[in-house]
Amino acid sequence: MTGAVLSSSHQDQKQAEAPRIRAGGKPIRLVLASASPRRLDLLRQIGLEPDLVDPPHTDEAVRRGELPRDYAKRVALEKLQAALARHAGAVVVAADTVVACGRRILPKAEDEATALQCLRLLSGRRHRVLGGIAVALPDGRNLLRVASTTVIFKQLSAAEIAHYLASQEWLGKAGGYAIQGRGAVFVRGIIGSYSNVVGLSLPDLAAMLQGNGIDW
Amino acid sequence: MTGAVLSSSHQDQKQAEAPRIRAGGKPIRLVLASASPRRLDLLRQIGLEPDLVDPPHTDEAVRRGELPRDYAKRVALEKLQAALARHAGAVVVAADTVVACGRRILPKAEDEATALQCLRLLSGRRHRVLGGIAVALPDGRNLLRVASTTVIFKQLSAAEIAHYLASQEWLGKAGGYAIQGRGAVFVRGIIGSYSNVVGLSLPDLAAMLQGNGIDW
Repeated sequence: MTGAVLSSSHQDQKQAEAPRIRAGGKPIRLVLASASPRRLDLLRQIGLEPDLVDPPHTDEAVRRGELPRDYAKRVALEKLQAALARHAGAVVVAADTVVACGRRILPKAEDEATALQCLRLLSGRRHRVLGGIAVALPDGRNLLRVASTTVIFKQLSAAEIAHYLASQEWLGKAGGYAIQGRGAVFVRGIIGSYSNVVGLSLPDLAAMLQGNGIDW
Repeated sequence: MTGAVLSSSHQDQKQAEAPRIRAGGKPIRLVLASASPRRLDLLRQIGLEPDLVDPPHTDEAVRRGELPRDYAKRVALEKLQAALARHAGAVVVAADTVVACGRRILPKAEDEATALQCLRLLSGRRHRVLGGIAVALPDGRNLLRVASTTVIFKQLSAAEIAHYLASQEWLGKAGGYAIQGRGAVFVRGIIGSYSNVVGLSLPDLAAMLQGNGIDW
């Protein structure tokens, strides 16, 4: 298993004693091609323990005129393809999560100014979270789908935004908030899959696996 | 602080060094009147650390002809009132979560047969989760609201149900499933507050507190 580049303490490099998923009753390896600790937690929530976490390195720049859904699909597939060569015969899962306001793709907030812009934009509005999921099966087929969840934000006061910015929770989050943290109080409600907003839609992933003979 | 009856290892009896919530800038105590470890986790998710967890003992029998929403509201208020006398001057939070299919209130699954009945009923349908939230303010006022979330279940196969029953995750859960666990794969989507389905709607609780001068 060469080529796996692991850079965060959240990642789980251990080789499992026994494979935990089966294709047609036969044990096979599961690889999570993502550096996100939230995606690893989501897999574990439904009893999926990857044999390896192998985050791919891809260029995530948005192309001119590219729509949010097309972007989420393309980047998930590129992440899968970047990881795939190293894991023949395994089930490989890659994902990309996009926060979209209309036709606009919101950035990952890496500084306070960006987080502030995102929160001001999302305040009092609905937006969509588009989650591209790409799965490679042991027989060589690749599956691809996009989950879409509508998120309804309450109107945020300047004091609420300032308080949230001070929490640093927005750091590295697409759209500048985390629904699984304090950001939960900003969200009046959602329409769709919750885990998609966190980073990987569990009902969609389960359907992709179970619909193709992968059980656990 | 007499009268607090704590019976589970999940409960947090410590007296905080410094109160974490304020009314009009003045620190006050926060009491969670619930034995649910999930509700404690939800409070912590948004930075609320109760000074005390004090689960009340109330009769949760459903009255003849009582509608799900009325039941959730009544039981949340009764839980609050049962805890209230011991905590004058504190903010006290009580809650009740009801899984309703039409006019029918689903039980907490305490045995496999009940869990099976619930899952068969919910399979391929929508149901509602009604969360009664009752809050006592330090000035003596009581607040009460009910959050409602629609949950859309996919069609479950007999094998999926059998697999889930074997996991024991349903034990003690209203409606026989846990959306925050493996039950997530049964839920195609929700309409409304996610934390309400887990056990306490965070946007609703935050609005009840912040709308009445309680900050943290």
